[in-house]
Amino acid sequence: MDPIRLDPWGTAQIDDYSELFDLFGIQPIETVIKDIPHPHRHIRRGVVFGHRDLELVLRAVSDDGPFAVMSGIKPTGDFHLGSKMTAEELIFFQSLSNKAQAFYCMADLEAYADNGIPLERSAKIAVSNLADLLALGLDPKRTYVYKQSEETRVMNLSFIFSRSVTQNMLNAVYGERNISLYLSALVQAGDILLPQTKDFGGPKPVVVPVGADQDPHIRLCRDLARKHQSRYGFLLPSATYHKLARSLSGSLKMSKRDPKSLLTLNDDPEVAKKKIADALTGGRETEEIQRKLGGEPEKCVVYELGLFHFIEDDPHVKRIYEECRSGARLCGECKAEHAEIVANYLKAHQRKNRSFIDQARSLLAG
Amino acid sequence: MDPIRLDPWGTAQIDDYSELFDLFGIQPIETVIKDIPHPHRHIRRGVVFGHRDLELVLRAVSDDGPFAVMSGIKPTGDFHLGSKMTAEELIFFQSLSNKAQAFYCMADLEAYADNGIPLERSAKIAVSNLADLLALGLDPKRTYVYKQSEETRVMNLSFIFSRSVTQNMLNAVYGERNISLYLSALVQAGDILLPQTKDFGGPKPVVVPVGADQDPHIRLCRDLARKHQSRYGFLLPSATYHKLARSLSGSLKMSKRDPKSLLTLNDDPEVAKKKIADALTGGRETEEIQRKLGGEPEKCVVYELGLFHFIEDDPHVKRIYEECRSGARLCGECKAEHAEIVANYLKAHQRKNRSFIDQARSLLAG
Repeated sequence: MDPIRLDPWGTAQIDDYSELFDLFGIQPIETVIKDIPHPHRHIRRGVVFGHRDLELVLRAVSDDGPFAVMSGIKPTGDFHLGSKMTAEELIFFQSLSNKAQAFYCMADLEAYADNGIPLERSAKIAVSNLADLLALGLDPKRTYVYKQSEETRVMNLSFIFSRSVTQNMLNAVYGERNISLYLSALVQAGDILLPQTKDFGGPKPVVVPVGADQDPHIRLCRDLARKHQSRYGFLLPSATYHKLARSLSGSLKMSKRDPKSLLTLNDDPEVAKKKIADALTGGRETEEIQRKLGGEPEKCVVYELGLFHFIEDDPHVKRIYEECRSGARLCGECKAEHAEIVANYLKAHQRKNRSFIDQARSLLAG
Repeated sequence: MDPIRLDPWGTAQIDDYSELFDLFGIQPIETVIKDIPHPHRHIRRGVVFGHRDLELVLRAVSDDGPFAVMSGIKPTGDFHLGSKMTAEELIFFQSLSNKAQAFYCMADLEAYADNGIPLERSAKIAVSNLADLLALGLDPKRTYVYKQSEETRVMNLSFIFSRSVTQNMLNAVYGERNISLYLSALVQAGDILLPQTKDFGGPKPVVVPVGADQDPHIRLCRDLARKHQSRYGFLLPSATYHKLARSLSGSLKMSKRDPKSLLTLNDDPEVAKKKIADALTGGRETEEIQRKLGGEPEKCVVYELGLFHFIEDDPHVKRIYEECRSGARLCGECKAEHAEIVANYLKAHQRKNRSFIDQARSLLAG
């Protein structure tokens, strides 16, 4: 095993991301980390591993200038851990300054077009999703939440942007794909640039926290921002990139299509415990071997639950890591400990979620 | 000269259109003309030469059932004769029954994206365009006029439709073109199918009167209607096809890009007279030859002005045609006669237009 990887904040996946630095010009988060006040757990632990132009946003923070943070969700079901990551980062950037404005898009049209979920149903799901955001700490007074099906300004921007993209440009970013994907990308560019339009106070730094797989959308949007700079004065949007939360079975990226390998914030805590009991670990074939060689936390989804999502305290995560690698900690007890932490988190979160439902409903109603 | 072409209602262009029958399945208008009550001048004279499924609409007329007629304009300037043709056909179909609902789209987003006209300016142009429609006889009580930039339902439909078109399908209809053209086509499909959505009373016959060059949009829209039939119950939209109004210099299709070869409904009547004096005719090299061989009205744009646009009385048009072919009528006097007719028409129309401006403004305001 490569000793360079012996890092409690590292995971087996890091190699999958490093090529993004060279190929696409994403900067390592280390280049700006010293300028980020009280960095979020994801940032401290390298879960957020890269960025583009985050300096712009950090300068706005230190100069007390306006900036925005933008994200969204396709309201097809409960918040899973991937949605939680983006949401926490959104809320973190919003918390950096009282000049920060958060934007959140409920992509109900995509939920209808791609998943067949009627707008009336996704509207209900969106209420629960927004209550999750409020429970996680979103400040509604400095947030603009909107439904994709109702926000004409975004649709209008994407229509205008369509005039300045060529098939070649789209093929270079996405490969040859269907027009629906291209159109979604144009609509997302509209979402990301909305905070810089006149109705929202004009050009300003905007950061979009995303999973590493979303970079093509960011690149296209930056290209469009550049092309329409003379008309709108757009600054190129900034982005941060996080590693993808693995499913409980260890496959890359959580997907709503496989509910058993997926934790959501509305899971029954007892069900969540069972899911954790069945999750992939970095354990060895036998207890004896594990006592001797130690476990492999880099491979372990249970360890990742604490590292990415549920254990705030850094020394606690470090201790788990070291005990695992030394062979002092076995998977059974470790799963039980994590299951308890997660179940308690879910109970507390769900209580908060319920207390925010009415507020979420009225925010979305208008 | 081919004797089969000796027809006062024929023009030199007819050959350009006949292939549409064989290639694309457009039906000759003759197949339904006997069922059209008091056919409009365009229909009587073969200017409207073809249709798709117009039977559906005619059956609604005779059964006193609901139907719709749909059209629109890019509000970039004054109504030219091409816009007038579509507008007259819209109004004609609306007049067939008091169950007929007219829909008219002001494509202000396209005016901005393609022609750089800001929405505030196109909003003013749209008021004048709508006053032209009212002056031509549109019944506002049975009309839904909307701005493309504000009609979320159309944008939402086009977004949904994008999921069911493939690159292959678009290439087959349009050839390989840019995504902006594809997107406009999807938005037009949304415009055409809007009258059949729940908000407007659900599925019903809809006719779209268009110029012959617009058939690809109709084909794509019918394809989309078929694909989304199970969800929305769409009937395939009907269409009628007219020959394109030539420019005054004789080139095919009037274009706003060449104002001198273009008549608009807001032209100063004296300026219009001068334009007509400079227009292409079907005259011979010398007066002597013309007296002997007769003129060629099929080639003559001045003749077309009366035939397509400004002379309502059929025997009058026939007389002009016969006098021209016989050599009894020379171009100078003929231009003067047409110039007078057109100038009088414009004066009367412009008076009416002004009297409708306030009503147009309030209709567009909401």
